[in-house]
Amino acid sequence: MRATRFFISTLKEAPADAEIISHKLMMRAGMIKRLGSGIYNYMPMGLRVIRKVEAIVREEMNRAGAVEMLMPVVQPAELWQETGRWQKYGAELMRIKDRHGRDFIIQPTSEEVITDVARSDIKSYRQLPINFYHIQTKFRDERRPRFGLMRGREFTMKDAYSFDRDVESMKKSYAIMFDAYVRIFQRFGLQFRAVAADNGAIGGTGSHEFHVIADTGEDDLVYCPTSDYAANIEAAEALPLASERPTPTQAMTKVSTPGTVKCEQVAELLGIGLQQNVKSLVFAVDGNEEGSVKKQLWLLLLRADHELNEIKMQKVPGLANARMATEEEIIEWFGTEPGYLGPIGAKKALNIVADRTVANMSDFVCGANEANFHLTGVNWERDLPLPAIADLRNVQAGDPSPDGKGVLAIQRGIEVGHVFQLGTNYSEAMKATYLDENGKPQLLQMGCYGIGITRILGAAIEQNFDDKGIVWPTSLAPFEVVICPMGYDRSEQVKAETESLYSALVAAGVDVILDDRGERPGAMFADWELIGVPHRVVIGDRGLKEGKLEYQGRRDTEATAVVVADMVEFIKAKLAA
Amino acid sequence: MRATRFFISTLKEAPADAEIISHKLMMRAGMIKRLGSGIYNYMPMGLRVIRKVEAIVREEMNRAGAVEMLMPVVQPAELWQETGRWQKYGAELMRIKDRHGRDFIIQPTSEEVITDVARSDIKSYRQLPINFYHIQTKFRDERRPRFGLMRGREFTMKDAYSFDRDVESMKKSYAIMFDAYVRIFQRFGLQFRAVAADNGAIGGTGSHEFHVIADTGEDDLVYCPTSDYAANIEAAEALPLASERPTPTQAMTKVSTPGTVKCEQVAELLGIGLQQNVKSLVFAVDGNEEGSVKKQLWLLLLRADHELNEIKMQKVPGLANARMATEEEIIEWFGTEPGYLGPIGAKKALNIVADRTVANMSDFVCGANEANFHLTGVNWERDLPLPAIADLRNVQAGDPSPDGKGVLAIQRGIEVGHVFQLGTNYSEAMKATYLDENGKPQLLQMGCYGIGITRILGAAIEQNFDDKGIVWPTSLAPFEVVICPMGYDRSEQVKAETESLYSALVAAGVDVILDDRGERPGAMFADWELIGVPHRVVIGDRGLKEGKLEYQGRRDTEATAVVVADMVEFIKAKLAA
Repeated sequence: MRATRFFISTLKEAPADAEIISHKLMMRAGMIKRLGSGIYNYMPMGLRVIRKVEAIVREEMNRAGAVEMLMPVVQPAELWQETGRWQKYGAELMRIKDRHGRDFIIQPTSEEVITDVARSDIKSYRQLPINFYHIQTKFRDERRPRFGLMRGREFTMKDAYSFDRDVESMKKSYAIMFDAYVRIFQRFGLQFRAVAADNGAIGGTGSHEFHVIADTGEDDLVYCPTSDYAANIEAAEALPLASERPTPTQAMTKVSTPGTVKCEQVAELLGIGLQQNVKSLVFAVDGNEEGSVKKQLWLLLLRADHELNEIKMQKVPGLANARMATEEEIIEWFGTEPGYLGPIGAKKALNIVADRTVANMSDFVCGANEANFHLTGVNWERDLPLPAIADLRNVQAGDPSPDGKGVLAIQRGIEVGHVFQLGTNYSEAMKATYLDENGKPQLLQMGCYGIGITRILGAAIEQNFDDKGIVWPTSLAPFEVVICPMGYDRSEQVKAETESLYSALVAAGVDVILDDRGERPGAMFADWELIGVPHRVVIGDRGLKEGKLEYQGRRDTEATAVVVADMVEFIKAKLAA
Repeated sequence: MRATRFFISTLKEAPADAEIISHKLMMRAGMIKRLGSGIYNYMPMGLRVIRKVEAIVREEMNRAGAVEMLMPVVQPAELWQETGRWQKYGAELMRIKDRHGRDFIIQPTSEEVITDVARSDIKSYRQLPINFYHIQTKFRDERRPRFGLMRGREFTMKDAYSFDRDVESMKKSYAIMFDAYVRIFQRFGLQFRAVAADNGAIGGTGSHEFHVIADTGEDDLVYCPTSDYAANIEAAEALPLASERPTPTQAMTKVSTPGTVKCEQVAELLGIGLQQNVKSLVFAVDGNEEGSVKKQLWLLLLRADHELNEIKMQKVPGLANARMATEEEIIEWFGTEPGYLGPIGAKKALNIVADRTVANMSDFVCGANEANFHLTGVNWERDLPLPAIADLRNVQAGDPSPDGKGVLAIQRGIEVGHVFQLGTNYSEAMKATYLDENGKPQLLQMGCYGIGITRILGAAIEQNFDDKGIVWPTSLAPFEVVICPMGYDRSEQVKAETESLYSALVAAGVDVILDDRGERPGAMFADWELIGVPHRVVIGDRGLKEGKLEYQGRRDTEATAVVVADMVEFIKAKLAA
């Protein structure tokens, strides 16, 4: 490609609404252009990267035996009503009406449509297993779109859906996809981590997320450096930090702790470690309207330095629909204000759940259910009965790994892929069956597998940039190599060598752009460093006098002189590295 | 590709709602699957054809110097309000609201968005000319979607937009696109015709349509077999059929013609040719509400055997917003009912326009503006003044070609491409300018260029089918070659030769599918004839005894025996033909 036949439009400054580095750099590099809130034009430079992402995904999906098709952007509401997601999905589902007043949606995902295809076109066990995928435009009407391609409204996603005869076979299909995803992310040239994940609203029995590692990621990834264990913090199991409860050494004592509504303040006042304190979190579960089910209040107990994991909490039987209790409710149940709450002496009956670690604490401190007073030296089964015990907290770095093979570390990641074992969630709702060997209808076992194609761009940049701009891995770069001639239109020799190298690289199958715009060197170099092309060749009269060209990798601090005749092989070696 | 790794789902019967052959065959061949009215899943077999169409279009667009980008499906209403199309576009424009109540549309085309890109990113004449294209999902909320991919609601289109500094340069960009389109349709392997077209609602100064020739086409294409002239009948100029008016020979006479409301009846009653009759068509143009502009009635005169061309009529000054007159209006203006109307003796003042051919008629017959009476021997400039003259009619086969180089023929076509010279229609409305050499802002000159990607599939089939199914041209076929082994799982020799040929063809870069499903020969052949794969190789024990395989082209009536070792070269020769 010649730059004069392409479209390059870089900016010195990012627009004010660009908050994160990938958004800023993509705007400045002219890769995307905002059309509306969360809606972007993919400019020629950005589209080239998208196409490279798509090509790698497509090749690996095909290699894994998935079959490409294409489901529509606009989908009839009826199918979404069959599964109940028309009601459940919320405001992110873009609902529309056609000229006849019929309801449609713009697809955020395609479980319903593919299950509709499956129930009519998969007739026999002989057609199984089958895995359909497509790469399609999606829409999610985010309340607050931001971060460029990281949380846009319109985006491109690869979604695949596997259909199997039984759970065992479905798990095989899932494993094949998992492996394909690993290959895909390896080929992207990105640091990534696959972590066990919570299934969330999509339902099903097991899932993994694929994260691009980046300090700016929104997710905490928990992993064990000395084993295979890895999970999203949402799903990472927290073991009790002591294997058994120490013997009590203190008597329970009510102490005056005026003005200490936070555990940190109590610990400081009492001169003890924060880890000796137990914090009280209060949730409410509403009753029904007729009053046959009454409102209940729940007291959750965590060690003061631990964080509640709401997803784990919602899995405690009875707490699926819990909400934070109001101050009025707290006063009604505890007889005191928040800040001095505890499991002993509440006014009204409570459900109490202690985190695993709390259940193994002795001589701990908690609120006395009386303003400005705490209890110290509290001990289970002496001062109060042991309540229900559950894993309620987020793990912390240094916690024991659930597989018993080391201690946990935490890093941040950006979710770009998600694989799910759906089981029969959708096939049951939509009656999607096949006939088995005995001619009996059986529900199809499903899996689904997504990759955020356009999100990959943002994540790759969050992981790979410097103060000059983007640093694309070669496999995703809009061009692998840029040739920057110094004085292309002034020097016959520069022009001749430039054309010769350009033709040779094109013939060698290298994705090269020749910057024939006639820009000054400084502006030209700044453009390509901003755009992030990984390999640059500079051709100038000075070097040519010595028969040499200049090579510089995007991360190199200095250029390397390369003999003219060796440059093609030199570049090929760099690309193969 | 192996059939067992692909998804094949053919039907014996087409669904009842499939009216035309391409729709029926695509449904039966499992290429598309209906999701809703005018909305289809592109199944794996159909998507392969779409990808082949896209690849050819992309290659030729790139070769012509156009630059690929991607504009969003969902677009803000504001831009469409700037050009006025938000109001003008009508019910086919799918209008939607997001969660905040803001207006958006699902794009049917992208003039507004690309002009928005251009006005911010094209700053200088140095960036011109530039031609952006994208291949994107479109939506048009048709009142009555039908004919499968031929008139769907959701479809894929390639649209390109050129930007130039002046009209001369814009016409060059237009010519480059025209030539690219010719190459594209040649590479599709379809019979096609480029015809001059009316610009229609999109505006601008010149345009051509590209049609796939098919008897089932909705458009009449006019062409001159002995010259380059070709136009859509909407735009084809009709010359007067006589170069001068013959001298009158008859006196004007009022004759009794009871019950003859149609010209054919009058001609029969009077024993004269239909071509001696003039028919009267009455249109009304409404006044304004204040009454300062009054309603006007227009009488259009055509030779009785000619058809009115409404597009030409709308171009007559004053008739842009004409509508058919009501019976009440006709009685008020003419004093009689339709059936006996004419240009002489109307009750109220009329605007009269005669078609060019009518203006050169003598001794003609027309209504007498009195029930059951006509006038014969009517002559211009004797019995009535010559009115305004215009080209009002559709040409007919046998008419003189407007270029004076022969007579016209007519064939039917399916419109699949359209190129337009837009001029400054959009750049003016949206203030899209560039700075010229003198630093002065100038309006961008635009062109736009569309190809209906998914519609190509329907059109190709309408042109290429037989009673067994689709007959794809090789360049569009889902697979170029199918290998049908007879007893793949029973005969070691068949399996070995099949695998050997399959590997050799794959290695030769042939897009081949191996039918390893184990279907019976009859069902297997019927599937591939229905799907329309152009080249078939049958491998069976009987032929192998003689060292031969069977080749049959999709249009061949008989198979050809080919020596095993020669088959790869044989196929390569067929594909190169």
